[in-house]
Amino acid sequence: MKRTELIENIRSKGSFLCVGLDPDIKKLPAHLLKEENPIFAFNKAIIDATAPYTVAYKPNLAFYESEGIEGMKALDMTVKYIKENYPDQFVIADAKRGDIGNTAAMYARSLFETLGADAVTVAPYMGADSVTPFTAYDDKWTVLLALTSNKGYEDFELMEDKHGHRLFERVLFRSQRWGSPVNMMYVVGATRGELIADVRKIAQRNFLLVPGVGAQGGSLEEVVRYGLLPDECGLLVNSSRGIIYASSGEDFAQAAGEAAKKLAGEMDTLLRENGFK
Amino acid sequence: MKRTELIENIRSKGSFLCVGLDPDIKKLPAHLLKEENPIFAFNKAIIDATAPYTVAYKPNLAFYESEGIEGMKALDMTVKYIKENYPDQFVIADAKRGDIGNTAAMYARSLFETLGADAVTVAPYMGADSVTPFTAYDDKWTVLLALTSNKGYEDFELMEDKHGHRLFERVLFRSQRWGSPVNMMYVVGATRGELIADVRKIAQRNFLLVPGVGAQGGSLEEVVRYGLLPDECGLLVNSSRGIIYASSGEDFAQAAGEAAKKLAGEMDTLLRENGFK
Repeated sequence: MKRTELIENIRSKGSFLCVGLDPDIKKLPAHLLKEENPIFAFNKAIIDATAPYTVAYKPNLAFYESEGIEGMKALDMTVKYIKENYPDQFVIADAKRGDIGNTAAMYARSLFETLGADAVTVAPYMGADSVTPFTAYDDKWTVLLALTSNKGYEDFELMEDKHGHRLFERVLFRSQRWGSPVNMMYVVGATRGELIADVRKIAQRNFLLVPGVGAQGGSLEEVVRYGLLPDECGLLVNSSRGIIYASSGEDFAQAAGEAAKKLAGEMDTLLRENGFK
Repeated sequence: MKRTELIENIRSKGSFLCVGLDPDIKKLPAHLLKEENPIFAFNKAIIDATAPYTVAYKPNLAFYESEGIEGMKALDMTVKYIKENYPDQFVIADAKRGDIGNTAAMYARSLFETLGADAVTVAPYMGADSVTPFTAYDDKWTVLLALTSNKGYEDFELMEDKHGHRLFERVLFRSQRWGSPVNMMYVVGATRGELIADVRKIAQRNFLLVPGVGAQGGSLEEVVRYGLLPDECGLLVNSSRGIIYASSGEDFAQAAGEAAKKLAGEMDTLLRENGFK
């Protein structure tokens, strides 16, 4: 999906919501366990209920891989289902891959071509040649980890060089050459508040994929205040647990739809208030 | 597999060779393509031919994932085949995973429990809570990326703080608290020469998993000079392409066995010369 198309979808829906499809088999509503593929049945119902309010879905591969072959089948079926039924939805394979060149090329092929995702999350530690096999796809998106939403982000991401530049800033700065705003996004946690403004100093036009609203405690208002691009939005805010586990009963899909509608409503208000047109 | 057992296997074989099982479907000998699962058929033949000279196998997950469900079946079958037929071989799932706590726990379950690997490679960028769900398994191994063998390692791994400490040293230093030499190893490229001595100043007793001998140009002599622990070896040197693609003909397995035997012979000589007893 092209950048202009993504922006247009955000504009027409008044939403920059991405729903994280992280189906933990232990948390699925009991009545789904009799389905042939309970994970896919869960995802399908969540997608149907939330699609009017979202512009993107982000399956996290760990949740599928941990279920072995059946889990991988569910992942394939989920991506195909979205592409066939909701072709305006952007699909991010949250895989956080990072490996040497020939292996990175394999992962890129696997996730962009075999799976058919629009975007893949990639880890920066190994440097340029672990990232550029992904950015070589100019019709697909590389979503590079920059400033993550988890507690451990302080260990390395905030490391400062002698000029006071932090590792996440070096990642943003160097990677500007590896891709462009039409095929490179960054993961920036909603829990990082003002640091998002520092991200924007370097990644001035890139979309930011923002996890951490909801269960992790990030503020949607702060994300918009520090990260919004007035003309292009430049934000995809992800919520996983707060939506997909809004209810654990038979009404799980309806509850997920309501949770997505509520969050999208807040987004619409914030977009209007902040001059996104 | 326990650390003492791994050391004993190295001692009895006079080899610290790990064979990388990176089966690229485009490079498999043509006669295997008529097999029901060509990737598994290739791996099985490679394993049977090289097992006398190796102590470990390292399937790189990218090569299996890129073939979809059939690839994942081949990976499962390969790990099971090694465990059933060569229980003294150490199996490293080269996955380079790294994600927030609950997701990292999923990956750990997937690779340690569902797949049954002894060890998993893990990326450090996101810090403590992305690594400790792996080190929580004290009977399994976490192999953390430190100083990689690829060209891009300079981008971030060598970043220096104001005290002159580099990112890879910070990774080694901080992670010493997250695991111990009985469940934590580090990836250190054979192409890094004297930097391996800097690794050993911090990771004094940890095993190092060393890729980059062979196709990538690293020197086995240098790895031993800077990295060997005289009483415990502390090294697993990986070779992938130099062994598994030693021949592209029907004699591929025999050629792989000969390449492994040659490398193991060099290892045996170096171990003796350097006082490993």
